[in-house]
Amino acid sequence: MATSNSLDALVQALRRLPGVGVKSAARMAFHLLQHDREGALALSQALAQAVGSMRHCERCHTFCEAQVCEVCQDPERDATRLCVVETPADQSALERTGAFQGLYFVLMGRISPLDGIGPKDIGLKKLLDRASDGVVQEVILATNFTAEGETTAHVISEALKARGLRTTRLARGVPVGSELEYVDLGTIAHALADRR
Amino acid sequence: MATSNSLDALVQALRRLPGVGVKSAARMAFHLLQHDREGALALSQALAQAVGSMRHCERCHTFCEAQVCEVCQDPERDATRLCVVETPADQSALERTGAFQGLYFVLMGRISPLDGIGPKDIGLKKLLDRASDGVVQEVILATNFTAEGETTAHVISEALKARGLRTTRLARGVPVGSELEYVDLGTIAHALADRR
Ligand SMILES: [Zn+2]
Ligand SMILES: [Zn+2]
Repeated sequence: MATSNSLDALVQALRRLPGVGVKSAARMAFHLLQHDREGALALSQALAQAVGSMRHCERCHTFCEAQVCEVCQDPERDATRLCVVETPADQSALERTGAFQGLYFVLMGRISPLDGIGPKDIGLKKLLDRASDGVVQEVILATNFTAEGETTAHVISEALKARGLRTTRLARGVPVGSELEYVDLGTIAHALADRR
Repeated sequence: MATSNSLDALVQALRRLPGVGVKSAARMAFHLLQHDREGALALSQALAQAVGSMRHCERCHTFCEAQVCEVCQDPERDATRLCVVETPADQSALERTGAFQGLYFVLMGRISPLDGIGPKDIGLKKLLDRASDGVVQEVILATNFTAEGETTAHVISEALKARGLRTTRLARGVPVGSELEYVDLGTIAHALADRR
């Protein structure tokens, strides 16, 4: 592909997508130019449009085109419960369960000392202000059950407790539909300890 | 992510990339909007630029911004040898070896009856005309050693032979640096049959 500058530029630009190496990028560029030029133009426009219009909700910090997102604006939601998640995708997963009627705070990341991501980068100060509005009675920590997610939950929990706010954590346990034989031991140990 | 139209549109557009499912698309959109808006704009522009300027070389059919690509224009190349490859990436791999000084014909695909891709879709007529220019003395079939690549090579080879043109095929054999113990048996059988 050495002879063409705009093709090289496209391959390089595709490599900035997470998880896309040089071979995938070349395959993507070939596919778009040879089989789906309409898709290439649609993607070009969607990127420019999203970058131009996406900002963060003033209340929950998720991606949003307005000042305040639809969820935060919904008067039907229970404003006494605030659920803290890492990303919009996590929020979306919780929404799909239909089991939570409260509001959210989206960290847009998680604390990761190895990557140089600290409390400031996840908007901890903003979360503390949000949770101290006098209406919120319970902050549900729904960060991931990874090392980084646990660290993040711990840091937030300590900061909120210092302000006298009650925090809870999603229960750890055996996934619905799974057989014990195939569940990892740490999960079984937690399910035992948290039995009810 | 249900609350935002331009974010949804971006995720949908990213899904048109080959090998990108809904979860990867969401992760890519999040990464671009949260951490690399400059990269998102660069990709948007690279896509529009490539779609606008990329056409096919009149002689070898590869992607090219001019009427005829640099390789085809190069007077130093040996015009008596024509190497047939499936994609620009395959051509690029051959070029990197530095072992071939001839010219190319890029099929921009391969025959695949199951996908409804026949001789017409790989420009067989154009290749026959190109190879019959009176200068080409040998057509080297460098399609992949997959079922589809072999079928493609076979169809091209028959058509060229019918016109009295000589075709050769890349040698099959044991990859350089590999131990026989770990090479698949079909490859070893071919290496035995083609021993020299
Ligand atoms: Zn919001
Ligand atoms: Zn050319």
